[in-house]
Amino acid sequence: MKLTILFGGASFEHEISIVSAITLKEKLNGFDLSFVFCDQDHTFYLIDSFKMKATTFSKGEHKKMPKLFLSNGAFIQKNMFSSKEYNATVLNLIHGGDGEDGTIAALLDFFSIKYIGPRINASIFSYDKIYTKWFCEARGIKSVEYQTLSVSDIKNIHIPYPLIVKPATLGSSIGVSIVRDESEIDYALDMAFEYDKTVLVEPFIENVKEYNLAGYMANGKIHFSIIEEPQKDEFLDFEKKYMDFSRSEQVSQADLTDNIITKLKTNFERVYTNMFEGALIRCDFFVVDGEVFLNEINPIPGSMANYLFEDFQASIEALSSNLPHAKRAKVDYEYIHSISAAKGK
Amino acid sequence: MKLTILFGGASFEHEISIVSAITLKEKLNGFDLSFVFCDQDHTFYLIDSFKMKATTFSKGEHKKMPKLFLSNGAFIQKNMFSSKEYNATVLNLIHGGDGEDGTIAALLDFFSIKYIGPRINASIFSYDKIYTKWFCEARGIKSVEYQTLSVSDIKNIHIPYPLIVKPATLGSSIGVSIVRDESEIDYALDMAFEYDKTVLVEPFIENVKEYNLAGYMANGKIHFSIIEEPQKDEFLDFEKKYMDFSRSEQVSQADLTDNIITKLKTNFERVYTNMFEGALIRCDFFVVDGEVFLNEINPIPGSMANYLFEDFQASIEALSSNLPHAKRAKVDYEYIHSISAAKGK
Repeated sequence: MKLTILFGGASFEHEISIVSAITLKEKLNGFDLSFVFCDQDHTFYLIDSFKMKATTFSKGEHKKMPKLFLSNGAFIQKNMFSSKEYNATVLNLIHGGDGEDGTIAALLDFFSIKYIGPRINASIFSYDKIYTKWFCEARGIKSVEYQTLSVSDIKNIHIPYPLIVKPATLGSSIGVSIVRDESEIDYALDMAFEYDKTVLVEPFIENVKEYNLAGYMANGKIHFSIIEEPQKDEFLDFEKKYMDFSRSEQVSQADLTDNIITKLKTNFERVYTNMFEGALIRCDFFVVDGEVFLNEINPIPGSMANYLFEDFQASIEALSSNLPHAKRAKVDYEYIHSISAAKGK
Repeated sequence: MKLTILFGGASFEHEISIVSAITLKEKLNGFDLSFVFCDQDHTFYLIDSFKMKATTFSKGEHKKMPKLFLSNGAFIQKNMFSSKEYNATVLNLIHGGDGEDGTIAALLDFFSIKYIGPRINASIFSYDKIYTKWFCEARGIKSVEYQTLSVSDIKNIHIPYPLIVKPATLGSSIGVSIVRDESEIDYALDMAFEYDKTVLVEPFIENVKEYNLAGYMANGKIHFSIIEEPQKDEFLDFEKKYMDFSRSEQVSQADLTDNIITKLKTNFERVYTNMFEGALIRCDFFVVDGEVFLNEINPIPGSMANYLFEDFQASIEALSSNLPHAKRAKVDYEYIHSISAAKGK
């Protein structure tokens, strides 16, 4: 199968996207892969597969490689007298800004390029953690209590300490702090507001059980990964998450009762259905007193959560044969014709 | 002032976008205008100002005009040995699909082209009427009771007749029906499902008072239009709305108490702030027993609701000097550098 891995982006998660792409090069080595890098200036480059290592990008060597342009149905490489098309299905692997905020989805939809990844609406409801809360409320999915603060309106926090403070729109724990008491709150808010003008405050639940479940829709049903209880040091900071994005060893299923497994899957389905079709997503859940709470939706998880799937390559293949199509309106100029006729023109 | 009017789009509202653009050519005749047409195949054309009439498009004459391409900071016209840039601020005048669903916003943001129009998040919450309901609930804005139906799950309707049935994502009353009793419901649903797989059902409120209020943010405050009580024949069907999009005569303020005026403006602000910055929007409200309900947000109103502004040209000029900037993350490869250093490479 042919597949184009699109990675990079003008995002705080640019570097972990590179790490994800390098990991997938190994995990999808049965595929005919192309690598398209989006740099921080939004220029696309076709990356030689042999040059797929982190220092290629940190040293700027990608700038010597061919530029690509978006065109109807494909990325195009322009030569002096000809052009070459890269029209394989794209795997959107740009984490964070650009990739997960709906921008890349809109671009690929507009240019009719098939892709694996969240569509524009799904991106909005997973990228901004406040919209995720609205989404949960509307769909009857439990999530942790929260409060929203904005730079211009830092209200009294009514949630008792300890708290967790998060910028509304970043992933990979960037700008996130655990706040034990009031003496730490100002610093935590300053840090979070560095990254976003809106900040979310939630209770920090000590020793909460956390479980990750990934999945995708193919042939009308959701295919679930195994459920992992992630290792954690309270929570993963950016450097640990960074290493986490290069994970490739399959993990084993967490030890859970059938009841909890069913609840986790039911909640995943409630999140996924009629929203995330076309994407392989990972949902991070908390379990408190037998109740399941959605913590976060990762619509483009690090290295596509390959380590949660028994046959990752087959999963990507199944998903890519089941991608939704953007429906375009057909224009027939019926009204202009009828008005012109009425005017006698 | 230089301004590029972007219109057309692969949308059911393609034709009314053309009508809007022709109307704005007259209303903004003090500006140095360019016209960029997006056809239903997503090709951009530079339209000669003298050819800005409806039949140019219905006859396909635009296809003889120069093609434009999106590029960093501008639309580009490519000639044999050179290229010409069109880098003026864009007024996104594509109604419905493409223009109001976040696609054009994402494209213009990605290519760093300044534009008047809703940003990607704002588009999502106004384009889909169900997400507008979620938005209203989260922001404490009253809206009419509703029920959601999907093609695959036509539930019992628990709202009493008469009802109004609407496709979730279309504007301009396309696919909308008033349903008096059960004998009419199947036909109305069939029609609505022609346009969208999700349909909204609301109570139809007989003789409800409707008021339209437009506005935009400039220099840190919202500038309101006058408030209009639209003429209506129960509700405007598509042909009437079509004509409505070419409106250019200024209207007079509806006769309202100060109390209602204040409530309308307060609700407008609640909708606009921290969401619609960069756009001139029109909110359509219902007033029932002195209470204000949001009916619809038009983030790209027909002919930009020019007829509601005393000095429309000055309004567009003020708005275009107050456009938000898409913030891009700066990539410094700090993590790759530190990991490479640790590995001794």
